Amino acid sequence: MIRYLTAGESHGPQLTGIIEGIPAGLPITEDEIALHLARRQKGYGRGGRMAFEKDRAEILSGVRFARTTGAPIALQMPNRAFEKDDANWPKVMSKEGKGEDVDPITVPRPGHADLTGIQKYRYNDIRPAIERSSARETAMRVACSSIARKFLKHFGIEIGGHVTRIGSVGYERPWEDIRELVDPMLSGGAETVFRTADESEVRCLDEELSQQMRDEIIVRRKEGSSLGGHWEILVTGLPPGLGSFVHWDRKLDGQLAQAVMGTQAMKGVEIGQGFEAGRRHGQVVHDEITYEDGDFKRRTNRMGGIEGGISTGMPLIIRGVMKPIPTMLTPISTIDITSKEEKDTRYERSDVCALPRAIVVIESVIAPVLANAFLEKFGGDSIEEIEERYQAHK
Amino acid sequence: MIRYLTAGESHGPQLTGIIEGIPAGLPITEDEIALHLARRQKGYGRGGRMAFEKDRAEILSGVRFARTTGAPIALQMPNRAFEKDDANWPKVMSKEGKGEDVDPITVPRPGHADLTGIQKYRYNDIRPAIERSSARETAMRVACSSIARKFLKHFGIEIGGHVTRIGSVGYERPWEDIRELVDPMLSGGAETVFRTADESEVRCLDEELSQQMRDEIIVRRKEGSSLGGHWEILVTGLPPGLGSFVHWDRKLDGQLAQAVMGTQAMKGVEIGQGFEAGRRHGQVVHDEITYEDGDFKRRTNRMGGIEGGISTGMPLIIRGVMKPIPTMLTPISTIDITSKEEKDTRYERSDVCALPRAIVVIESVIAPVLANAFLEKFGGDSIEEIEERYQAHK
Amino acid sequence: MIRYLTAGESHGPQLTGIIEGIPAGLPITEDEIALHLARRQKGYGRGGRMAFEKDRAEILSGVRFARTTGAPIALQMPNRAFEKDDANWPKVMSKEGKGEDVDPITVPRPGHADLTGIQKYRYNDIRPAIERSSARETAMRVACSSIARKFLKHFGIEIGGHVTRIGSVGYERPWEDIRELVDPMLSGGAETVFRTADESEVRCLDEELSQQMRDEIIVRRKEGSSLGGHWEILVTGLPPGLGSFVHWDRKLDGQLAQAVMGTQAMKGVEIGQGFEAGRRHGQVVHDEITYEDGDFKRRTNRMGGIEGGISTGMPLIIRGVMKPIPTMLTPISTIDITSKEEKDTRYERSDVCALPRAIVVIESVIAPVLANAFLEKFGGDSIEEIEERYQAHK
Amino acid sequence: MIRYLTAGESHGPQLTGIIEGIPAGLPITEDEIALHLARRQKGYGRGGRMAFEKDRAEILSGVRFARTTGAPIALQMPNRAFEKDDANWPKVMSKEGKGEDVDPITVPRPGHADLTGIQKYRYNDIRPAIERSSARETAMRVACSSIARKFLKHFGIEIGGHVTRIGSVGYERPWEDIRELVDPMLSGGAETVFRTADESEVRCLDEELSQQMRDEIIVRRKEGSSLGGHWEILVTGLPPGLGSFVHWDRKLDGQLAQAVMGTQAMKGVEIGQGFEAGRRHGQVVHDEITYEDGDFKRRTNRMGGIEGGISTGMPLIIRGVMKPIPTMLTPISTIDITSKEEKDTRYERSDVCALPRAIVVIESVIAPVLANAFLEKFGGDSIEEIEERYQAHK
Repeated sequence: MIRYLTAGESHGPQLTGIIEGIPAGLPITEDEIALHLARRQKGYGRGGRMAFEKDRAEILSGVRFARTTGAPIALQMPNRAFEKDDANWPKVMSKEGKGEDVDPITVPRPGHADLTGIQKYRYNDIRPAIERSSARETAMRVACSSIARKFLKHFGIEIGGHVTRIGSVGYERPWEDIRELVDPMLSGGAETVFRTADESEVRCLDEELSQQMRDEIIVRRKEGSSLGGHWEILVTGLPPGLGSFVHWDRKLDGQLAQAVMGTQAMKGVEIGQGFEAGRRHGQVVHDEITYEDGDFKRRTNRMGGIEGGISTGMPLIIRGVMKPIPTMLTPISTIDITSKEEKDTRYERSDVCALPRAIVVIESVIAPVLANAFLEKFGGDSIEEIEERYQAHK
Repeated sequence: MIRYLTAGESHGPQLTGIIEGIPAGLPITEDEIALHLARRQKGYGRGGRMAFEKDRAEILSGVRFARTTGAPIALQMPNRAFEKDDANWPKVMSKEGKGEDVDPITVPRPGHADLTGIQKYRYNDIRPAIERSSARETAMRVACSSIARKFLKHFGIEIGGHVTRIGSVGYERPWEDIRELVDPMLSGGAETVFRTADESEVRCLDEELSQQMRDEIIVRRKEGSSLGGHWEILVTGLPPGLGSFVHWDRKLDGQLAQAVMGTQAMKGVEIGQGFEAGRRHGQVVHDEITYEDGDFKRRTNRMGGIEGGISTGMPLIIRGVMKPIPTMLTPISTIDITSKEEKDTRYERSDVCALPRAIVVIESVIAPVLANAFLEKFGGDSIEEIEERYQAHK
Repeated sequence: MIRYLTAGESHGPQLTGIIEGIPAGLPITEDEIALHLARRQKGYGRGGRMAFEKDRAEILSGVRFARTTGAPIALQMPNRAFEKDDANWPKVMSKEGKGEDVDPITVPRPGHADLTGIQKYRYNDIRPAIERSSARETAMRVACSSIARKFLKHFGIEIGGHVTRIGSVGYERPWEDIRELVDPMLSGGAETVFRTADESEVRCLDEELSQQMRDEIIVRRKEGSSLGGHWEILVTGLPPGLGSFVHWDRKLDGQLAQAVMGTQAMKGVEIGQGFEAGRRHGQVVHDEITYEDGDFKRRTNRMGGIEGGISTGMPLIIRGVMKPIPTMLTPISTIDITSKEEKDTRYERSDVCALPRAIVVIESVIAPVLANAFLEKFGGDSIEEIEERYQAHK
Repeated sequence: MIRYLTAGESHGPQLTGIIEGIPAGLPITEDEIALHLARRQKGYGRGGRMAFEKDRAEILSGVRFARTTGAPIALQMPNRAFEKDDANWPKVMSKEGKGEDVDPITVPRPGHADLTGIQKYRYNDIRPAIERSSARETAMRVACSSIARKFLKHFGIEIGGHVTRIGSVGYERPWEDIRELVDPMLSGGAETVFRTADESEVRCLDEELSQQMRDEIIVRRKEGSSLGGHWEILVTGLPPGLGSFVHWDRKLDGQLAQAVMGTQAMKGVEIGQGFEAGRRHGQVVHDEITYEDGDFKRRTNRMGGIEGGISTGMPLIIRGVMKPIPTMLTPISTIDITSKEEKDTRYERSDVCALPRAIVVIESVIAPVLANAFLEKFGGDSIEEIEERYQAHK
């Protein structure tokens, strides 16, 4: 079983991660991890922070001669802002002293973990909540997950995502239009999807919509507001039979849902047609079964590759929503936690729309879930051993 | 930490459940459990099976003199169909013998765990997949969760749900219309919602929509099709500070999402405005903070009671979608797993729309998640001990 | 991953268990489970309770036509004493009412969970602690584990145990003497050990020691005292490579130790030479490696089949200690929890020495641990699938 | 719930750890962690490696102004040998390249994870097994656990250990002699034990035995052999009521046993009298209950502070055995994994007896287990909150 922990604050010295349970013998390099970290840093709608980061995770253990050893893999990624920024982070974020000459932040921003963080942990200063709940943390989640993703790729399982809506701009028929556009791409593997989407500044597969999304972002930036949107992730190459119906917590869709909803700013998730399936009737929702070339297939894939909590062998389709970024230039009303006076939210440098970048995060966080389901099916401690079985199984 | 396991087949002798981790001293009776079991059995759109069931869970351990003891609580619920039905279930489902004169089921129904079950477990007969993946299992999940629900209720935390859409019939503005209707009810606690909804055959709070939903069901029944829809669950009385942002798997929304998506036929879940938040911009999505009577409040509750993975103290709003029932009178195309020939799905007695009943299931499955978050905050082994702390905390 | 929950009180209506995660297709019958339940009931040194019990676990789910289906398996075992005993257990243990005419037990017995149970759960009556902490619960643990044990047996992994000491009577050289006696038996599989030991009333492999142990029990019974002792469990057929050194909680010995020490009355556990290894020096403690017939072997097995937290392929040797039963005819001093007055412990019918019976319990509780380690290595959802791999692996 | 992961190889660039779940507001500094790291490095019987190490863990996250924030705490500890040693570790342990000019190690050392590591992970080179299974890893376990230990200390719970036997040298009556020596020390808290033991080069409380143990080590070093021994850990200040009898995996003794047996070279563990209890009879094994100054006490503490899997409030007594170090100057026989030829084990620089140092490791690894049991009882997210409850509880 693969598990991982991440640590680190947004303006602390570094992010740290440990991923444990990756079988031995998997080829992996820092460059492969850097690929998705770089992808995570690109996307229209970003604020000024981007200049500071050029993320690269350093492997500190668990890899020898470019292959995993089965031991826990530690990763670290320095926060360049820590040293270079003029905010004096080493002082503000010091692990020592009493912080006497550091002013506490006392005005919580709605939509962040600011107020809830204080209520939970009894902070006098919102700073620790800001620092740990920040989306900066997702960089390390991407790094750790990249290794699980490489494991999946080794067995022909590919993941790729794209943006389907930003604010008022999206596909007219969010199911049919996207299927027509995406499904033909999948024969080459789901990474075709992300490679195509990555060519768009907003990670949208449709050129015209991309332009409209860009315009929407410009408008909302001028207003001092922010935007979220909808996304879709595809996974190809999953064998049928991962997950199970026998107990609720073995269902693959439930496990995927937790991984997605455990990601900053995600407020909804659906599999296949999802919410649309509630608007239709049974005859047009289920996927007829066929048999071709020795394999069971489906005429359609409205269930999004999962039936009864188990993978069907069809592409996995997960969709969801990211809320608009809560940090906005135009303030909204809040309360100072110390004085209890009404205040405007103060502005912090921020993106206007983080969705294009978040695509990479969601692609990543589902990888350990899928890798665990795969490992439960095939077992084994080394790539060589798993591969023998996987070949025999096919 | 509360955990539970359920066991039992749809046409086996009984369902069995064990729930472990409930503190000592909680008042509980079989009648209280029976309440939600009975609610689960009511709802328009049911097929003939209803007549067989009159669910009542028998407590077999962990309760003495109408209070929990802290020990695991075993529950059992006989399947009346097992003995009385003319299908000879004792033979078909026998735990002994070789089943030589029981015909295997070889035609998988799309949308069920039939084909995936076979692919995973290498069955020659689909029956075991049908039996365990059946929604019948949710009866035991409701029974076990009812005890967690009673625990929450003891601390003033109430759960109530209602149907917001069946097929083409739903609220015009699914966020605003429902807020106007539901929010005023919540001052009396979220159980007001379910009590009101339970008066409608389709568990819809709006009378006119109820009638239209009923009509929609009649139409689709005649066509031999089926329906799903959308739902909303409210939770009131949750203190702020449950869940956390410090690690992805501690986020309350992620844990709730798994519980919901781990429930039969659920294909999507959202918190607060959910998918709608992706269509709007930041200024109209976040909830301004106020301070009244010594407490932080929010002017609105678009985030649905969770910020940064932590409860805000506002009502929790979870919404989701149930797909149409895959068992339909009008067949769709499939493949015989033995002969590999194309076949029509065979009909089994079934509901047309299970959503009204499923409301009770979803209300239930989130209860252990919330109870665990509450226990993590307050700790303790007996109701008396927890209550002292809870009172001191308030 | 296999997991299980047990429920039930010593004098409640029944014990209940659910075991989840057993692959599909494993042949299993109630008779096979009954075998170990019957073994658990036999043994010299028993008190009067034995007459009441004739344990047989009924399978309620998860098995069809004498094979597992992959679904959770529920088991129940009635407590015959509940109905037949003259103590009116239905009233004393009622799940309803207020228990007004049932006298609370207020005198805690040292060595039981009586006082700690009260301190933890704030009971006014010790009864619930007595009931759930009783060794009666181990009957259901044996039943659940028997299925994991059958799974292991299917792959040639056998478990067998014997008593090595009761009070002052034991082998003179607890390592060498036992090795000389036991190791030759293991070529036929570890079940030879239990079959041989079962022929002794005290489950001791040595006839003379058996007689002395019996005498020791007679002496201590007359004194109104009680006895514990030492035991050894052997496991043969384990492939090398189960467990791991890469993280502390993956070590097979650690997992086994928890299972053993999580069993009533066990106060110590050791692997291989165990404590004796601390008295010797390195040259005579480690096991030289040889290579015979294409396999790595060891000249000795002082490490007891585990090196670096991983199975070596040599027989597993786990040893431990059971404390004397705390319930004794001759009272010891304690305090009434209500009056705070000094009292003598009251006598409850009890065994004098439970160790011969406990052998079966310990054999059982390690089975799910080993089955999980095996499943992690080989993966898979059905016996057929696992068997293909296991054969390919050999 | 507290959990932690460690990563790092013995001769890799560094050890890394992440501990997650520590409540907010706990005062902690690197110096406090360094204290136990330094203690772990001291002890007679060490080989040459000691000169290289001067362990100090750097805190990288989760601590601000000398207090925890509730966020995961990352720690790193460089391996000085990596850069300074003449073995060219950067090349030997490179995470890149193909390792073509690095000779594989092919001769497994009995008693290490060398052969089992190869059998499990299919290595061609034993190096990765040597590196990760090394006791070097325990340095990071001590560092992570030190934070849990500080948490316990904050609530008056102290841990301290000492050596009770090295090879043939130990107390004559291992229970009575040690109780007479140790129990009087405990009124000042268990740290008195470690502070006293730390004054002995072999961490033995008895001066004469210390000298004999030192002599024993000298003799075995000359012979090229190695030694292990027995140890005892004491914990004072634990409130009654931690752990539970209601389910096997909630028993505190079982959880402690896994933590201990999950530590390198530990082959046995016992609570209280442990194995000795199997040699005695009931009248002299159990602890009579008394009532003094408003509290329940015990006349003796033979059960070692746990009854029925729950802490009694008496000092916790855990004892165990460490096997002799498998790396020895005088070789023993083994097999080359490539050529399958018989070989002598090659010598690597090593300690003769690691037990004095291991005391600190065992003191440490039980701390997260106890902290979790404490948190389950008292709940809460900040020290302030927990302290209010703890004071109210007392």
